[in-house]
Amino acid sequence: MIRALAVDIDGTLTDGNRVLCPSAVEAVRRLNVPMILATGNTHCFTRAVSVMLGTPRIFVAENGGVVSYSEDEMVILADLGICESAFREMSRVFPMQRYNSARYRFTDIALQHNFDLEKASRYAEAHGLPVDLIDTAFAVHIKDKRVNKGTGLEHVAERMQIDIKDFAAIGDSRSDISMFSLTGFRASVGNASPELRAVSDYVAKAKYGQGFAEIIDYMIKMKML
Amino acid sequence: MIRALAVDIDGTLTDGNRVLCPSAVEAVRRLNVPMILATGNTHCFTRAVSVMLGTPRIFVAENGGVVSYSEDEMVILADLGICESAFREMSRVFPMQRYNSARYRFTDIALQHNFDLEKASRYAEAHGLPVDLIDTAFAVHIKDKRVNKGTGLEHVAERMQIDIKDFAAIGDSRSDISMFSLTGFRASVGNASPELRAVSDYVAKAKYGQGFAEIIDYMIKMKML
Repeated sequence: MIRALAVDIDGTLTDGNRVLCPSAVEAVRRLNVPMILATGNTHCFTRAVSVMLGTPRIFVAENGGVVSYSEDEMVILADLGICESAFREMSRVFPMQRYNSARYRFTDIALQHNFDLEKASRYAEAHGLPVDLIDTAFAVHIKDKRVNKGTGLEHVAERMQIDIKDFAAIGDSRSDISMFSLTGFRASVGNASPELRAVSDYVAKAKYGQGFAEIIDYMIKMKML
Repeated sequence: MIRALAVDIDGTLTDGNRVLCPSAVEAVRRLNVPMILATGNTHCFTRAVSVMLGTPRIFVAENGGVVSYSEDEMVILADLGICESAFREMSRVFPMQRYNSARYRFTDIALQHNFDLEKASRYAEAHGLPVDLIDTAFAVHIKDKRVNKGTGLEHVAERMQIDIKDFAAIGDSRSDISMFSLTGFRASVGNASPELRAVSDYVAKAKYGQGFAEIIDYMIKMKML
């Protein structure tokens, strides 16, 4: 049996334009276990999604850089300083442009897709910068190498006193791999990247929020929920 | 014909627990005019709702204290300083407790419902404090007297070059009255307060998000949309 879900937001609960799919909103209401949001979004954005979906105020934001344990307790697990240094160094070479939601970011930097990500990643590695560049299809994030959705979920699971193997993870992109490697069940939506599909126990036929709803229905049918 | 909507969030698009109603999410997708969110919520929360509903990044937050014109342009129209002074003065007399979302507030203070609102309002008036206390059923806000949802909507309408009389306003509480008094059509959901119902052209039979969906259907049937 699955005791909790860890679920990505953009592209998993939303369509390709970040708009919530009504079928995903409906599916969340069918759950009988806590659903933990795990996302690259800011703490404030993720909190708003948790309010509007009625999911717990315990969640992973900024790709593991920030964890919320409750309405009153937020922990910062990554270092924005090293991202700022890496950004300054890399933006001399690449035409990197920040997103304005930066206003609410604590630990990572969100960039527009207007530079060569492969080259920038190779540059970061060659110069020993302690950061990862993550492409979530909605933004490129410069983040502290030491954190990811998986390390964030470990903190959350410990706080909830739920074995991480009793979690199911649901997502759509490479940034979900770190949690897929820890949970007992992993499912991806129909629009998921090839790398994530390759490590999924179930891949939905439907895309986006309808894929999420399909996964929930599958898990209920298989008596995992 | 209505050229734009001004819509409250909590209790209008959500249920009594602030969770989005799937029928409201569906109804937003049937709109053929821009829907402007007008709310007591923070800029960050309101922006997140606009992302998730796919509504424009032009909206009224903090009961008119903050207006967003685009992803890059936010204007602060009220003075947090006078709210802080009023809060310091009133909290000596009343057991006022702030909400933690205060972290993201620019111009007003959100309080829990653990004090006598009528007495506090009379105190503020008797002592000439330049603030209003607003009860939205989800929080009590101390706000700059000079702004409200109506003044915020005037800024938005001017920016959109849409006559405010060509807006329809939809809401559920007293804080919506200031915009109801400006727009050409006003509708309230079935859970609306008596004061708002009294100034509504249409009151939905259904409550919460289902009431919002009923209003949209009514407006389509009446060829307003």
